[in-house]
Amino acid sequence: MIVVMGKSSGDKEINDVISRLQAEGLAGHLSRGVERTVIGVVGMTTALPDLRETLVLMPGVEDVVPISKPYKLSSREFKPENTLIKVGDITIGGDEVVVMAGPCAVETWDQVISTARAVKAAGANILRGGAFKPSTSPYSFRGLGEEGLKLLAQAKQETGLPLVTEVLTPGDVELVGRYADVLQVGARNMQNFSLLDEVGKAKKPVMLKRGMSATIQEWLLAVEYILSQGNRQVLLCERGIRTFETATRNTMDISAIPVVHKLTHLPVIADPSHGTGTRYLVAPLAMAAVAAGANGVMIEVHPSPETALKDGAQSLTFQQFEELMAGLAPVAAAVGRRMAGKGV
Amino acid sequence: MIVVMGKSSGDKEINDVISRLQAEGLAGHLSRGVERTVIGVVGMTTALPDLRETLVLMPGVEDVVPISKPYKLSSREFKPENTLIKVGDITIGGDEVVVMAGPCAVETWDQVISTARAVKAAGANILRGGAFKPSTSPYSFRGLGEEGLKLLAQAKQETGLPLVTEVLTPGDVELVGRYADVLQVGARNMQNFSLLDEVGKAKKPVMLKRGMSATIQEWLLAVEYILSQGNRQVLLCERGIRTFETATRNTMDISAIPVVHKLTHLPVIADPSHGTGTRYLVAPLAMAAVAAGANGVMIEVHPSPETALKDGAQSLTFQQFEELMAGLAPVAAAVGRRMAGKGV
Amino acid sequence: MIVVMGKSSGDKEINDVISRLQAEGLAGHLSRGVERTVIGVVGMTTALPDLRETLVLMPGVEDVVPISKPYKLSSREFKPENTLIKVGDITIGGDEVVVMAGPCAVETWDQVISTARAVKAAGANILRGGAFKPSTSPYSFRGLGEEGLKLLAQAKQETGLPLVTEVLTPGDVELVGRYADVLQVGARNMQNFSLLDEVGKAKKPVMLKRGMSATIQEWLLAVEYILSQGNRQVLLCERGIRTFETATRNTMDISAIPVVHKLTHLPVIADPSHGTGTRYLVAPLAMAAVAAGANGVMIEVHPSPETALKDGAQSLTFQQFEELMAGLAPVAAAVGRRMAGKGV
Amino acid sequence: MIVVMGKSSGDKEINDVISRLQAEGLAGHLSRGVERTVIGVVGMTTALPDLRETLVLMPGVEDVVPISKPYKLSSREFKPENTLIKVGDITIGGDEVVVMAGPCAVETWDQVISTARAVKAAGANILRGGAFKPSTSPYSFRGLGEEGLKLLAQAKQETGLPLVTEVLTPGDVELVGRYADVLQVGARNMQNFSLLDEVGKAKKPVMLKRGMSATIQEWLLAVEYILSQGNRQVLLCERGIRTFETATRNTMDISAIPVVHKLTHLPVIADPSHGTGTRYLVAPLAMAAVAAGANGVMIEVHPSPETALKDGAQSLTFQQFEELMAGLAPVAAAVGRRMAGKGV
Repeated sequence: MIVVMGKSSGDKEINDVISRLQAEGLAGHLSRGVERTVIGVVGMTTALPDLRETLVLMPGVEDVVPISKPYKLSSREFKPENTLIKVGDITIGGDEVVVMAGPCAVETWDQVISTARAVKAAGANILRGGAFKPSTSPYSFRGLGEEGLKLLAQAKQETGLPLVTEVLTPGDVELVGRYADVLQVGARNMQNFSLLDEVGKAKKPVMLKRGMSATIQEWLLAVEYILSQGNRQVLLCERGIRTFETATRNTMDISAIPVVHKLTHLPVIADPSHGTGTRYLVAPLAMAAVAAGANGVMIEVHPSPETALKDGAQSLTFQQFEELMAGLAPVAAAVGRRMAGKGV
Repeated sequence: MIVVMGKSSGDKEINDVISRLQAEGLAGHLSRGVERTVIGVVGMTTALPDLRETLVLMPGVEDVVPISKPYKLSSREFKPENTLIKVGDITIGGDEVVVMAGPCAVETWDQVISTARAVKAAGANILRGGAFKPSTSPYSFRGLGEEGLKLLAQAKQETGLPLVTEVLTPGDVELVGRYADVLQVGARNMQNFSLLDEVGKAKKPVMLKRGMSATIQEWLLAVEYILSQGNRQVLLCERGIRTFETATRNTMDISAIPVVHKLTHLPVIADPSHGTGTRYLVAPLAMAAVAAGANGVMIEVHPSPETALKDGAQSLTFQQFEELMAGLAPVAAAVGRRMAGKGV
Repeated sequence: MIVVMGKSSGDKEINDVISRLQAEGLAGHLSRGVERTVIGVVGMTTALPDLRETLVLMPGVEDVVPISKPYKLSSREFKPENTLIKVGDITIGGDEVVVMAGPCAVETWDQVISTARAVKAAGANILRGGAFKPSTSPYSFRGLGEEGLKLLAQAKQETGLPLVTEVLTPGDVELVGRYADVLQVGARNMQNFSLLDEVGKAKKPVMLKRGMSATIQEWLLAVEYILSQGNRQVLLCERGIRTFETATRNTMDISAIPVVHKLTHLPVIADPSHGTGTRYLVAPLAMAAVAAGANGVMIEVHPSPETALKDGAQSLTFQQFEELMAGLAPVAAAVGRRMAGKGV
Repeated sequence: MIVVMGKSSGDKEINDVISRLQAEGLAGHLSRGVERTVIGVVGMTTALPDLRETLVLMPGVEDVVPISKPYKLSSREFKPENTLIKVGDITIGGDEVVVMAGPCAVETWDQVISTARAVKAAGANILRGGAFKPSTSPYSFRGLGEEGLKLLAQAKQETGLPLVTEVLTPGDVELVGRYADVLQVGARNMQNFSLLDEVGKAKKPVMLKRGMSATIQEWLLAVEYILSQGNRQVLLCERGIRTFETATRNTMDISAIPVVHKLTHLPVIADPSHGTGTRYLVAPLAMAAVAAGANGVMIEVHPSPETALKDGAQSLTFQQFEELMAGLAPVAAAVGRRMAGKGV
């Protein structure tokens, strides 16, 4: 952290800042420039996340510039090698590209099992499906609840596909954890800190979606909540951010994929279904994500999207999903990766 | 809702859309233009919030354009007259401008009581203070919890000021409701639908902050969650949205105040402390909000902001708050309003 | 400027950075912390705006953090007292609130003169009107060109109101300057550097609108282009920024007004007509802008907005403008200002 | 266009709207629903781009919803087959992926010729380089001007690579056109309509970069300016949009690539150098762009980025560019394309 003193600040203001730092167990290193005097803060500031807020109010201080990253456990500095996460027979975070696929929301047994079989046949590795659904409108379908979890569990048993499904509230973590192989925390809950604490105590991998307007730094701080509770199995999921553009539902931030790989040791999954909101964009963006280094993709598939209770417009049919899978494999190969579960 | 057919669509596609609408209990009204054929959807579509998603997938359909608003109970069409909300002796939503003030987070008894006394003396109507604090970093201060609520309750008893305080998770609604006069739902929880359901069942006014990247329509749909559970006492709070500008922590959307007044019957409060994140901007933005028609303002005040555990940089000192109150009254008068609690 | 070295950087990398700084005529001040070594750059860096770009590539460098502001002539540090700009009898930048009003685009003599008389009668100080109009679509009305300037000049002669009008391209600066008292550079041209250079050589005040997605810093750098060519009479104009919100055409950044006052010595005008795009929002946002300290407002007025060739939806009728003027005066008074041209 | 009438509107208001439409040579088709009456506008509205603005002001009108696209010549409806653009021996817009590469700004003969030779050797098809440079700060390097164009022309002669270079102002179009094979209009000039008119009259292909905060629709309307002047050889270039994220300079909107392909018949190029602003992100985003269907990429390359006068941080070294080219070819092949100039 660097404290930038105003041009007209004098020795008293400078000394007061240094004393304040000393009171916090830190040291201040003075550097007088032509235009500005700056004070470098020497010591561990991660444990004092709000120090900036108060230093900035001290007389003579013009600005306080953070230079350390505010997250620790998720950083590559803390753990240089990639974190590998096992889900069933699949390892996420290495050379393989994993595919999670299934319906947005669980509706009926027929819908779930036919989709599960179709995505498995096409090469998907993990079954996705929502039993508890967040919805912008209170008048939308909100999911089947535990009944939906049971249908998913049955589909898992029949197909052997592990499950990823969303948990909405701290009180449901235990329940959802009984059925799910991966607990998903959705974009709207990225800063639901009570929920983060709770999944941080679970013994299951957690997939944390990026909030619609979350900076990458805020996303990594949300990850830090989970890691600091002891759960080190966290997958990040880029699902589009909110921008001024209205031609797509969200703007898929493909650059977040290599940025996350540089900053952290954790795997990153791309969700082009929510990232674009439109069916014809799912395949090109899935391919772009894999080309940019994503560790996997999550795709919404439905037996008849035009009757889906949720997110029909972005769901692929079985045939479209099969075509996507056929298209993804050569892209993965082109960047030195392979589709998970396909052998070497 | 209007279904826009593609240029090359034929009678079969048009008839299929109309049949589909009939299957949903709606009618389709055909209108053939020079460039496009459109089908007007006749019937109640509020109960079918996901219909657009599936119609858009039908063969021949180019776009589906919603024309009704997706919220109902919060709209001025549903209830033309302003909703008035009583909090202690104060009525929010009428001609009076209410002021909520206090520390960001409750830290100590001395801090709470000295602030409560100071803001009351300066004319504030409601005491604010956080006992459960959401924090971007897990290493930040997260509040005193119930201990903080008790300190607030004691300060209420000594000063007579009603309390507004935040609730973070559904499981805490009952606890926080025992102490608070107004339950605050923060920006990060605006789409925490489990929490919205729960405060919708409470018998207390709820103040719902706008999410950092929430459109006004999404905000009103979040309000709809609360109203549709039976709680009709909802205050909206504009607290700044996320934009590309970095000179301020958020961009205070002052235009949201008159927009909300036009679309709904509910009161709207402005929070320039979080809206700007910087002390010198609080007073000008508070005045702007009142000039634009806000029903009240919420202001962070701290006995010594430079030692605050949270949000010091945006907190006013007692004296700065007193000056702000002196400045607000003539602005309220200039727009035909008066400060609450000041008599006529 | 602070160079932040990576954790694993060694003496060689540090020395290379220092040598590089010395080669640019600067010095490097070393500060070794617990987590990071940082090098403070001592010397004038304003003249080396791209230095950061190259330092960041040097081996061992993790980040380069600017701490000086990149603009100079527009800063309050360079010139602490407010710049006052005379336009006709009016002085902008002091205690008075100036009002610029008129049609978006000049259409006919009747339209211009009736509007000029109406806004003058209501108390406006400067006539606005566009002869050269930027339009998103090539099929929109693009203005009357010099013919429009002549109509404005005639209206000026009849009413005594000075003129503000837009110039679109460097080749027109001389022509527009023959008619206008203030040269307006529009939001879409805020980074049209050839145009900025050219108005920087003019002997007239320039009003520079903020670009739709310009940070305040970029805006001040655009101002710097004009000032550095010798023209020190620059007015800034906040006209709304582009955000995700679609309920308003733009989001009026009211906080930019006090931020600009803190950072620069130049006056700032608010344009709530373009800032909101909707008639009913113009008055509340104009009042908010004045309450927040704007030196003036610019308002679109049209004899019959429902037949306007441009921007009808945001134009006030004569009567609405009169009501707005009646509403603005008490707000100005409430914040210790007065409407220009009204005497003390 | 659909006119949505308010709930309380009566026959008079409806008839007035219909009369108004008839006065414009259009017809109004009435459709009475349960909640709303809507009037479908029948006739050509592209020629009346501002009609919406005025209809929305008529008594009883609640909203006016456009349903036709406001651009015509650039739309796939107008011209279903892809536009192919010849530049030297290369055809852009078909199965081949074209690579434009070179320095951000032309600095010296050595720099230009060494870069031209290196990028040609690595397989680039077109040489890029700026002689007129837009710069946020007036104190930055602004290019060598015509001297730079001459150096580029000489490099073209020696290597045979055609040239793409930026033109900043209408007065320079003729000059730049004497040297360039493709005229580039930069992001900051996307809505510099005088410049668009001028390049629309040129007999050269134009590459139009997307504005930092331009919607895809606004971008296509800017293209429409050029097309409607008679120049049908337009390339679009996605170069990142402005969002709240600060980890990258811009957010590359990869989804814009397939959206543009769906809406228009024109080729689209990706510029990951400006799109990310950071060297390590250029290769993954270039690969993502090709995977998503881009017709080409534009890459900044410099003999020694750490001494570049402009944009060093995002420039690749010769070796990094060679590695990128080696990586791009298999990605192109994976999506059924091939690198231009490589034969079949």
